[in-house]
Amino acid sequence: MIGRLNHVAIAVPDLEAAATQYRDILGAKVGDPQDEPDHGVTVVFIELPNTKIELLYPLGEESPIAAFLERNPAGGIHHICYEVDDIIAARDRLKAQGARVLGNGEPKIGAHGKPVLFLHPKDFNGCLIELEQV
Amino acid sequence: MIGRLNHVAIAVPDLEAAATQYRDILGAKVGDPQDEPDHGVTVVFIELPNTKIELLYPLGEESPIAAFLERNPAGGIHHICYEVDDIIAARDRLKAQGARVLGNGEPKIGAHGKPVLFLHPKDFNGCLIELEQV
Repeated sequence: MIGRLNHVAIAVPDLEAAATQYRDILGAKVGDPQDEPDHGVTVVFIELPNTKIELLYPLGEESPIAAFLERNPAGGIHHICYEVDDIIAARDRLKAQGARVLGNGEPKIGAHGKPVLFLHPKDFNGCLIELEQV
Repeated sequence: MIGRLNHVAIAVPDLEAAATQYRDILGAKVGDPQDEPDHGVTVVFIELPNTKIELLYPLGEESPIAAFLERNPAGGIHHICYEVDDIIAARDRLKAQGARVLGNGEPKIGAHGKPVLFLHPKDFNGCLIELEQV
């Protein structure tokens, strides 16, 4: 069911410092910051040859990553995203197996303009998993 | 400098349950458990089309992931691994920029039989980063 690893998302306490570090010290291809007001984050995309890293920084008063950064002031890996062909079929298969889907269970349009869902970390080895239909 | 994302490593409290979950619920290609006594872990490799997930479970008395699982009993993402062409050049570049390399600073042979180094999470947004020479 799951396909490619679409991205690893890292919440960071200083977006400019983290972007500079990936560009200048780790020598990666780093994009410009993009505000995603619908998702409460500013994102910097890092293109690796086979996948992406997304640096996340809170945007606005109700950012979904603000609490994470309060618990992890140095930052940390926030979630990983797997691609699926059919997000409704994936959701129904997961729910039938007892896995919990976050929110109201309906896909939302994610930061890449595609339908996404998040799965409960307690059901998946403490990892927050995003599924993105591609 | 950094190339492909070689793998994402997830420490899990129940290796058989996690492997079954990835195989049967997430529908991924999951290998058999492999003991890596030199690294204090039993590993299950999950092959995605573009990278790997490694499920890690402690092996032996001095496993490097035992403390992580004590702090995170449900499991969690333990590290991410970036590929580099020349690990000594990468290390020297990182150290010249003030980044800390764990251990004695000399590469060890990792679970894939290739030289690896780990970077201090406090220098990299709370993420434990492994570099592997490929």
